[in-house]
Amino acid sequence: MLKIPTDRYFSPDPAQRQIARDLHAQIADLPLVCPHGHVDPRLFADPDYRFGSPTETLIIPDHYVFRMLYSQGISLESLGIPKVNGTKVEADHRKIWQTFADHFYLFRGTPTGSWLSHEFQTVFGVEEKLTSENAQQVYDQIDSQLKSEAFRPRQLHERFNIEVLCTTDMATDTLEHHQAIRDSGWSSKILPTFRPDDVVLLDQPSWLHNIERLGELTGEPIAHYASYIKAIETRREFFRHLGAKATDHAAINAFTGKLSKTDAETIFQRALQGKADEFDVHLFRGHMLIELARMSAEDGLVMQLHIGSSRNHNEKLFAEFGPDKGCDIPLATEFTNNLRPLLNEFGTDQRLSMILFTLDESTYARELAPLVGHYPALKLGPPWWFHDSLHGMRRYFDQVMETAGIYNTAGFNDDTRAYPSIPARHDVWRRASADWIASLVVRGMIDDDDAQAMMRALVYDLAKQAYRLD
Amino acid sequence: MLKIPTDRYFSPDPAQRQIARDLHAQIADLPLVCPHGHVDPRLFADPDYRFGSPTETLIIPDHYVFRMLYSQGISLESLGIPKVNGTKVEADHRKIWQTFADHFYLFRGTPTGSWLSHEFQTVFGVEEKLTSENAQQVYDQIDSQLKSEAFRPRQLHERFNIEVLCTTDMATDTLEHHQAIRDSGWSSKILPTFRPDDVVLLDQPSWLHNIERLGELTGEPIAHYASYIKAIETRREFFRHLGAKATDHAAINAFTGKLSKTDAETIFQRALQGKADEFDVHLFRGHMLIELARMSAEDGLVMQLHIGSSRNHNEKLFAEFGPDKGCDIPLATEFTNNLRPLLNEFGTDQRLSMILFTLDESTYARELAPLVGHYPALKLGPPWWFHDSLHGMRRYFDQVMETAGIYNTAGFNDDTRAYPSIPARHDVWRRASADWIASLVVRGMIDDDDAQAMMRALVYDLAKQAYRLD
Amino acid sequence: MLKIPTDRYFSPDPAQRQIARDLHAQIADLPLVCPHGHVDPRLFADPDYRFGSPTETLIIPDHYVFRMLYSQGISLESLGIPKVNGTKVEADHRKIWQTFADHFYLFRGTPTGSWLSHEFQTVFGVEEKLTSENAQQVYDQIDSQLKSEAFRPRQLHERFNIEVLCTTDMATDTLEHHQAIRDSGWSSKILPTFRPDDVVLLDQPSWLHNIERLGELTGEPIAHYASYIKAIETRREFFRHLGAKATDHAAINAFTGKLSKTDAETIFQRALQGKADEFDVHLFRGHMLIELARMSAEDGLVMQLHIGSSRNHNEKLFAEFGPDKGCDIPLATEFTNNLRPLLNEFGTDQRLSMILFTLDESTYARELAPLVGHYPALKLGPPWWFHDSLHGMRRYFDQVMETAGIYNTAGFNDDTRAYPSIPARHDVWRRASADWIASLVVRGMIDDDDAQAMMRALVYDLAKQAYRLD
Repeated sequence: MLKIPTDRYFSPDPAQRQIARDLHAQIADLPLVCPHGHVDPRLFADPDYRFGSPTETLIIPDHYVFRMLYSQGISLESLGIPKVNGTKVEADHRKIWQTFADHFYLFRGTPTGSWLSHEFQTVFGVEEKLTSENAQQVYDQIDSQLKSEAFRPRQLHERFNIEVLCTTDMATDTLEHHQAIRDSGWSSKILPTFRPDDVVLLDQPSWLHNIERLGELTGEPIAHYASYIKAIETRREFFRHLGAKATDHAAINAFTGKLSKTDAETIFQRALQGKADEFDVHLFRGHMLIELARMSAEDGLVMQLHIGSSRNHNEKLFAEFGPDKGCDIPLATEFTNNLRPLLNEFGTDQRLSMILFTLDESTYARELAPLVGHYPALKLGPPWWFHDSLHGMRRYFDQVMETAGIYNTAGFNDDTRAYPSIPARHDVWRRASADWIASLVVRGMIDDDDAQAMMRALVYDLAKQAYRLD
Repeated sequence: MLKIPTDRYFSPDPAQRQIARDLHAQIADLPLVCPHGHVDPRLFADPDYRFGSPTETLIIPDHYVFRMLYSQGISLESLGIPKVNGTKVEADHRKIWQTFADHFYLFRGTPTGSWLSHEFQTVFGVEEKLTSENAQQVYDQIDSQLKSEAFRPRQLHERFNIEVLCTTDMATDTLEHHQAIRDSGWSSKILPTFRPDDVVLLDQPSWLHNIERLGELTGEPIAHYASYIKAIETRREFFRHLGAKATDHAAINAFTGKLSKTDAETIFQRALQGKADEFDVHLFRGHMLIELARMSAEDGLVMQLHIGSSRNHNEKLFAEFGPDKGCDIPLATEFTNNLRPLLNEFGTDQRLSMILFTLDESTYARELAPLVGHYPALKLGPPWWFHDSLHGMRRYFDQVMETAGIYNTAGFNDDTRAYPSIPARHDVWRRASADWIASLVVRGMIDDDDAQAMMRALVYDLAKQAYRLD
Repeated sequence: MLKIPTDRYFSPDPAQRQIARDLHAQIADLPLVCPHGHVDPRLFADPDYRFGSPTETLIIPDHYVFRMLYSQGISLESLGIPKVNGTKVEADHRKIWQTFADHFYLFRGTPTGSWLSHEFQTVFGVEEKLTSENAQQVYDQIDSQLKSEAFRPRQLHERFNIEVLCTTDMATDTLEHHQAIRDSGWSSKILPTFRPDDVVLLDQPSWLHNIERLGELTGEPIAHYASYIKAIETRREFFRHLGAKATDHAAINAFTGKLSKTDAETIFQRALQGKADEFDVHLFRGHMLIELARMSAEDGLVMQLHIGSSRNHNEKLFAEFGPDKGCDIPLATEFTNNLRPLLNEFGTDQRLSMILFTLDESTYARELAPLVGHYPALKLGPPWWFHDSLHGMRRYFDQVMETAGIYNTAGFNDDTRAYPSIPARHDVWRRASADWIASLVVRGMIDDDDAQAMMRALVYDLAKQAYRLD
């Protein structure tokens, strides 16, 4: 029988476990704070929105799931992942589900495995471990749940006890779904986040198109760097108007460096002519990060930096299936030298709250903890992506906290695409936090009062403070 | 009294320890699978082969042992390590043994110390810890064992319960010992591995000589790149004919990149004239890795890549004593960008099975686990060399498994030079695996069925599958 | 009530804890060996020296403390940190102490927090945890202690049971305080350390001035590279005469490389004319490290290398407050290639003892353990700076010891600026060592005899040996 244990994720040591259990009990009923993720706001715009089949809900949109199957030789076509050119892929959702169940053993010991078990049991009420034999029966059970009233996203949202959820939206997004949510009078807080990568990264295939669109949206064609900057500021204002608290920026590395106005204009013009080269892309990205920090200092939007992913590493797969298909591979990352120009301009500016994320754990203790432990504008985000796991969290606590202190970190965010996995992800963080704090108590490094304050901070307060959600 | 404990290497936590003990008991009698190592096939070619003295068997051939003594100021001469120029070195094996015993304390807490204790007790029946006082008595005891019938390599092999053992052989090796083993009708599987570094790395001192030899062996002088490639293919065929399942490749970094035929030919011609420079060496190595991947895809030989050792770092010592003398030092290694050209050509080719090894643990979670967790052709090899230790394995499990999943790893291989240490090395892996799996059970992350399946996979199935040994 | 627990820092596992407790008890009374730190020798030169207020003693000189407050938006001015230009800063020490107490929660789970708790209780007898409410009362208590006879540095020194303490002194230091200590007939060993960064690093703002001063001190103006080298040698002799056992060198990276005499002279002349560029600085530093290794081989001074800190990362703060203000940020560091030229010249020279320190933990297992586990001249120093913490020590033991063996490490040093924190820092190391050794015993990897020998070595013998303090 599938039965996620009450004391899951805690140390087996009885003394530490008891403390972790008590700490966890104190915060178990606190609402979830979700300041960063990739949930589609459409789920909440239409009060009658229904999820699709189990396969559509749990497999096809979740690259954590299908990349593991792919790594063992199962084609994305056979998993129903849509192709860029529209060629037919497997459409039999029960067949895909069966393939998934047949290979469910691949997730043993992985966070995806833990999340799925947690979801199956606590969200869908499935009482058995998924096997080849019971695959279709489990499918039926989940399918009937998904079709029920209780599984409309708004209902689930309330059941999940989510206090606030921020989505991630392109600079050129009209935010119509966010507007619809507001207009509907639904009281839950669903907030947009301004992610302008599509107009900042000159090598985005649709950059030119996005710039045109940006001009349309702001009512002024963008022919020069100055109007480009103004358009971005206008869009930020629009996002803020619809409740945005933060921006988000992906960058392959942490390079920052200010260009002169002339150089910025020159590169911008080359880009408009489709002639920007790799070095232009690099310089412009590094320049814009400083510009965006300036804007954040001025308008108060919290600035998130997600650094170090080599996107679409598998070229053939990217060509066939597009981005976000589980073939983004991290790179070694350097922050100390690269962020210095930005930090020397805005690192001590208390109007700015900048949250850093890394995929290179060797920078935790070496660069990031010392940086956030010094610069008032900086906070360190939680373990990201591949590191959003029990052991990833343990390494994070181990390598970050002694130098940074917990108050220079930003609590947790789930970065979810698959909506029903949100509670499972927070569950890991909450329990990992409880266990880590318990490990300090049991070693006599903090007392019970400290432990209780740290517990609440890590699972609730810090995220709200860092993202200015109060 | 020397007494390796029954519960060695397990967590002290009683709950976890009990689970680890039970898991270990289930696989304790499974035979050893040894798909990669450096045992000399001569040991098995002659049924009457005898090991030399304890010093010749346990010290002189084992750089793990003598490099530690050297680091504390004991000269290699005094340890009987032969010099390149044939100058006399210490020849009194009892004296060398005494020096070793006098400094045995240096190995406290090291894997070499653990392996030696395990060997002394379980292979040689020595009941006391080695000390200055009992050094000669222990020498006598081991010496008499080594001279006994039971210690002929073939007898030991059967006692060790080794199902299959792969050696490592140069491209120009005649494999006469492997032929002799086959001809002798001995039933144990001893298989060659094709390691063509000596003809691929243009900076090998004997490269030119090796190319000549390659031409002789394949019956056609090698004057051009095309005949060179053909000769390598011919040798691979010869190795396969004698049972080889895999190739092996050392490279100082993971750079790959395809040359045009013209460029490959140009560099090859420069090398034939002894004029290849450092950059030629680099480009040709990166090109050949892709060529060798192509060959593997075609002939099915599993391709091993051992990346990131700066060989012979101590120049004087290399000049005096030659290679493999404990002065190879690891380098920071980059896989994400470097392997991309190869992976974009063969990473999704299911005919290929490529096993990666690293000495840079910062790449485990950052690059290698995401890569093997995506590309169907890739597997990650076990902790290598300096990391083949209890804590090295714990870091590996911790940093690799959540992202890669165990089924994208290649189980264990012992990489042994010192034949009698094979059981000791597998013992560490088996117990470390049991303890890691138990840590997941006790934290409620997997159930008992998963645990048992993972246990067998890690110590037996995965190695056989990844190396296509079935 | 503040009560640091008897079993602090030990594993909660009862079996491991009991062994750790027993091991610790055996060495608890051994004197402290302090071969590297930044205590001001003036403290001991004048037998009647008194510490200032609690704020002057515990906050203002300790960048570990004030950088954490600064990271949360508290200005250095408000903490009484003096400005370079002499502008007034907060002078009310009670007010600063109150700010500190109000934010004492920031140190939860940090080594600074642990050290302060330990100091408050064991050095100053404070029985309560510092809070906003009791801040002034605690201030009074510490203040009255600091004013007492028992808190003169010499008295504290004897109470702390410090066997030997080495300070860090510029090449141009007259060592008058060290002379005064000797002249006073006080029996405690306070020894100078030769740290010539101020005359070796060409980009030090006062380099030219320092060279002049060096000429004055050695009685010969320095107009050429040869006289510069001779002057350094003369100063080393002077330091040795006053008891110095070691030198110390900071470098942003580990680059070493020998210049020809002509090139050295050319760069030196450019520097004398204030025209050395960044590359000159780099080449000259790398050259001088080899020269300084030669000098150490000749005069026997142990050579310490502290590598990889980007000093004064926050430019504005540096301009306003000067160096050592908590804004030095570590950099990724490469040792294998960079140290090779030096090691190929002096790495096997047994006259040399060179101790390496890193802020880049990814080099522990990858580069440093293999290097010190091979080269007779090398030892690895203890976890440095940000890594001088319980978890930093655990990572060090985990990643270094299996490959290096403990006998290629240099024991502990506290690197202290804040004198009263010395016992607290050694307390962490001693307990972390006991716990680590206990973890090996409880896993059956070493026996009790080994454990006891290792325990004493790690906390006492190794430091004395590596620094040649016998």
